[in-house]
Amino acid sequence: MAKDKGPRRPKAETPKGFRDYFGAEVTERKAMLDRIAAVYHRYGFDPLETSAVETVEALGKFLPDVDRPNEGVFAWQEDDADWLALRYDLTAPLARVAAQYRNDLPTPYRRYAMGAVWRNEKPGPGRFRQFYQCDADTVGSGSVAADAEICAMLTDALEEVGIPRGDYVVRVNNRKVLNGVMEVAGVLDPADPSKFEHERGIVMRAIDKIDRLGEMGVRALIGKGRMDESGDYTDGAGLSDAQADVVLGFMSARRDTGAETVARLRELAGGSAIGTEGVDELERIAELLAAQGYGPDRIVIDPSVVRGLGYYTGPVFEAELTFEILDEKGRPRQFGSVAGGGRYDDLVKRFTGQSVPATGVSIGVDRLLAALHAKGRMQTDARGPVVVTVMDRDRMADYQAMATELRQAGIRAEVYLGNPKNFGNQLKYADKRNSPAAVIQGTDEAQRCVVQVKDLFLGAKIAAEASHEEWKNQPAQTEVPRDALVAEVRRILGSV
Amino acid sequence: MAKDKGPRRPKAETPKGFRDYFGAEVTERKAMLDRIAAVYHRYGFDPLETSAVETVEALGKFLPDVDRPNEGVFAWQEDDADWLALRYDLTAPLARVAAQYRNDLPTPYRRYAMGAVWRNEKPGPGRFRQFYQCDADTVGSGSVAADAEICAMLTDALEEVGIPRGDYVVRVNNRKVLNGVMEVAGVLDPADPSKFEHERGIVMRAIDKIDRLGEMGVRALIGKGRMDESGDYTDGAGLSDAQADVVLGFMSARRDTGAETVARLRELAGGSAIGTEGVDELERIAELLAAQGYGPDRIVIDPSVVRGLGYYTGPVFEAELTFEILDEKGRPRQFGSVAGGGRYDDLVKRFTGQSVPATGVSIGVDRLLAALHAKGRMQTDARGPVVVTVMDRDRMADYQAMATELRQAGIRAEVYLGNPKNFGNQLKYADKRNSPAAVIQGTDEAQRCVVQVKDLFLGAKIAAEASHEEWKNQPAQTEVPRDALVAEVRRILGSV
Repeated sequence: MAKDKGPRRPKAETPKGFRDYFGAEVTERKAMLDRIAAVYHRYGFDPLETSAVETVEALGKFLPDVDRPNEGVFAWQEDDADWLALRYDLTAPLARVAAQYRNDLPTPYRRYAMGAVWRNEKPGPGRFRQFYQCDADTVGSGSVAADAEICAMLTDALEEVGIPRGDYVVRVNNRKVLNGVMEVAGVLDPADPSKFEHERGIVMRAIDKIDRLGEMGVRALIGKGRMDESGDYTDGAGLSDAQADVVLGFMSARRDTGAETVARLRELAGGSAIGTEGVDELERIAELLAAQGYGPDRIVIDPSVVRGLGYYTGPVFEAELTFEILDEKGRPRQFGSVAGGGRYDDLVKRFTGQSVPATGVSIGVDRLLAALHAKGRMQTDARGPVVVTVMDRDRMADYQAMATELRQAGIRAEVYLGNPKNFGNQLKYADKRNSPAAVIQGTDEAQRCVVQVKDLFLGAKIAAEASHEEWKNQPAQTEVPRDALVAEVRRILGSV
Repeated sequence: MAKDKGPRRPKAETPKGFRDYFGAEVTERKAMLDRIAAVYHRYGFDPLETSAVETVEALGKFLPDVDRPNEGVFAWQEDDADWLALRYDLTAPLARVAAQYRNDLPTPYRRYAMGAVWRNEKPGPGRFRQFYQCDADTVGSGSVAADAEICAMLTDALEEVGIPRGDYVVRVNNRKVLNGVMEVAGVLDPADPSKFEHERGIVMRAIDKIDRLGEMGVRALIGKGRMDESGDYTDGAGLSDAQADVVLGFMSARRDTGAETVARLRELAGGSAIGTEGVDELERIAELLAAQGYGPDRIVIDPSVVRGLGYYTGPVFEAELTFEILDEKGRPRQFGSVAGGGRYDDLVKRFTGQSVPATGVSIGVDRLLAALHAKGRMQTDARGPVVVTVMDRDRMADYQAMATELRQAGIRAEVYLGNPKNFGNQLKYADKRNSPAAVIQGTDEAQRCVVQVKDLFLGAKIAAEASHEEWKNQPAQTEVPRDALVAEVRRILGSV
C-alpha cells in the first residue's frame, strides 16, 4: 500500500555551524560594539562599512591558520562569470578600499569597522561559521607610533567593556626580530628569502603552540619531529640542537622589564640587520607607551607572540585575558587570546603595486562576551515589558490606551495579544517575558475607574518565601485609581 | 616580442551592485537603527539576530515583486550538497525561527530584527544588492489589535527618526476586502480559489500601479490589455466593463473619514463573506487606533493599498512620505513609500503544517535616510578629531602624551602619523579630516613649556572673509601654557 504523504515540508533549521541570537544576546553584543566603537572614535578613527560580499579576486588568499585543512570562504559564481564570496575578515576589504579610493582618502587613513565575517570551516563547539569582528587600522603610516597607539587603544577598549586592569595583558612582539633569530639560527637567508620557507613555517607554528606543547614539544617539532599522545606523527623542521637552542633562547627571552627583554633580544638577534631593526622598533614602542602611561602592567614585550597570519611584516600584538575560567569539564584554565593584530605592509600592494604601510587590531567580540559571561561580569537589564492583561475582550481599546500611556511615559509596555480566555496563560506569558509588572482591569474595576497593578518580581519572591497567611494578604498587588496607573507602575519599577 | 608582464594584479572594486559606506554614512544609519530599535523595544518587542545564511529550503520562494524577472537570491551549494543562500528579507528567517523554537518562545512572540539583506537582482541607480531592513513582527496573535499596534508603532518610529506628523501617512487596507471585491467582480470563486488566479494577479499588480498609470491605465490592464508609451503591449486580465467598474469603484472608495470609507467598502464588498470579514477588521483597527489617539492625520484606511507580496492574508499597511523632493532631473515628486507590512498567517505553516497567525512591518532604512537627506533633515556631527601635529620627529612621545591627555578628557584626538616633514601636509590632513583644532609645539615652544592651538573652523572663516591685516593678527591661533592644553581645546570646541 502506497503511503499518501502530503508535500514534504522544509526543515526549520539553521544551517550547520550557524546560530540565532535572542534578546539579551543581541543587546549585550551591541552594547559591547558601541563601547569599543566609542574608544576607536575617540582615537580619531572613522567608521567604514563595506558590504558582506566581495569578489574572490579582491579577497585573495590570506586566510589565517594555514595549518588547518578546511580553511575556506563561502563563494559562488555569478551569471556573468565573476566569482563572489562572503568576506572572511575585515582586513581584506580594507585593503581593497584603501586601493580603490586611494586618491580620496586622507593619508594616513584611520578606520574602524565592525560586523560579521564568515568562514567556511568545519564548525565545532563554540566555533561558528559566522562571527563578529571589531577592527581598527591605520593605513599609510610606517611609524611605529601607529603600532604603539593601536596597543594603547586596545587596552582602553578592553577596560571600557569591563575587563579591569590586571585581568588582561597586551603582549607585543616583532616579526623582524623573529626573522633575525631565523637568520642567526641559519633558516633564513636574506639574499634568498624563499629558501627554508617550509622550515620557517614549521618553526613559527611550533612557537605559536608553546603554551600547549611546552618547551620539549616545541624542541621536537623544530627538530626531528613529534609524536603526539594519540600516536600521530608530525614532521619536524629538521633543525640541529644548536639551531633549536637559538630559537628556544629567543622564546624565553622575556625578562621582568621591557628594557631587560630588549637587551636580551639584542644579544640574540644582534647578528642580523633585520633583527636589530626589529629590536629597535620594539624599544621605541615601549618608550612611546611608557610616555603615555601605558606600562608593563598593561602592555609587555613578549618574544613568544607569533600570530598565525602570514601577512604580518613588523610589530605583532595579542591581548590575552589572564584570569582563569572553568572549561566544559570543570577544569580551571586561562581564558586566552581575545584580540590580536600587527603591521602588514604588503596587503594594499596586491592591488596597486605600491607598498602601503598599515597596522591594525581585531577584537573577537564573541569571545570577549563569552569571557565576561564566564567571569560573571555581564550585567544586563533583562526585564521584559509591563504586560497589560486582557480581562474583557471587548475592552481591548481601553487596554491598548493603557499601554500607550505607559509607553508615552517611557515605560516598556504591551497588551497581551494571545487568546485572553485563560487568565493564567496571561500571567505565564508575563513570567516567560520576565515582566516586572502586570496591569489588570476587569469589568468591576473598570466601573469603579481603578486598575490592579501586580508587582511580579515581588510576587515571585513572596511566592517563594512567604507563609500562606502573608501570601493571602497579596502585598504584591495594589489597586490604584485608573489615572494613577503610570505613577504606580513607576513606583514598582523603582523609577519614580 | 613577448611582453614581460608581472603577475596580473586584482582589481580594487566592489562587486557590481554593492557599495561602501564611509564615516557619517555609517553613523547616521546606526543612529537611525538605534532610534527605531528603541521604539520597537518600548512596545515590548525583543531583538532577534539570525545569521545572514539560511538553507535555500528554509528560505522558500517568497520573493516580492513577482513581476520582475531577475528576482533571485545569492545561493551556493555546500560540499555535502546542501544549498545555502543569503537571506533576502528578515521575515523568512523569522518564520524559520518561529517554527524551530516553537516550544520555547513565548506566545505571542514579538521580535524585532535589523540588518542587511541581499537580493540577486539587476542593480540600478540608488538600487543596491545589499541593503538594510528594520522589522518588527508579532507571531502567534490572530487579533487585529496586533495589526493596529504595528501601525501605531510605525508612526512612532517615523516621528522618532525625524519625520514630523503631517509629512507621512500610514495607509491601511485588507486583503480580505480585496478578495471580497474580486468575488463580487466574479474573479474569485470561494469554492475553488485556484480559479482565476492569473487574472487576480494582473488585477492586483494593476491596482498597485494606479499612482503611475492613472484610472484609464488600470482599466486597460484589468480589461483587454494596455500599450505603454514605448509601444510595448501588456496583456490584460480580460475583465468586462462591469467587472472593472467594481474593481475601480473599490479603489476610489476612500472617503474623508475612516467611518465613511468603511461604510462605502461595506456597500461594495458586502456581497462576499470574506469581504465583510475584512471590512469588519478594518473598522476594528480604526477604532483601536482612535482609542489610542492615532487619528486619520497619521493612519488612514485606503483601499488602494495592495503591497506586492503574495503571502499577505489580512490587513496590509504602507507608510508613505507625503512631502515632495526633487528627482535627478530637478522635477518635484512625492518621495513615496518607506515602510510596509501586513498579516501573513501561512509562513510558519510551511514548516510545521500548523497555521500560525503573524503580522509585521519592515522599514526601509536606506530609503528613509535618503528621504531625510533630500529634505535637509540630517544633522550630523561630522567634526573630525583634534590633530596634534608633529614639528619635531624625535618628540613623538610628547605629542602622543598630548593626544592621550585630550582623549582622557573625552576629546577625540590623534597625533599626525604620516610623514611629518612637510608641515603644510599636516594642516591639509587636518582639513580633510574636518578637524576643529590643531595642536602645534616646536622646539621653541617645548622649551618655553607652551603649545599653540589653532582653531581651524575659525581659521577657515577668517581666511575666507578677513582682510590681510586681520589675517596677520592670527586670532584663530593662540599660545597657552602646556598644562592649559585641554582647557584651550575645550574652549575652541565650545564644550567648556
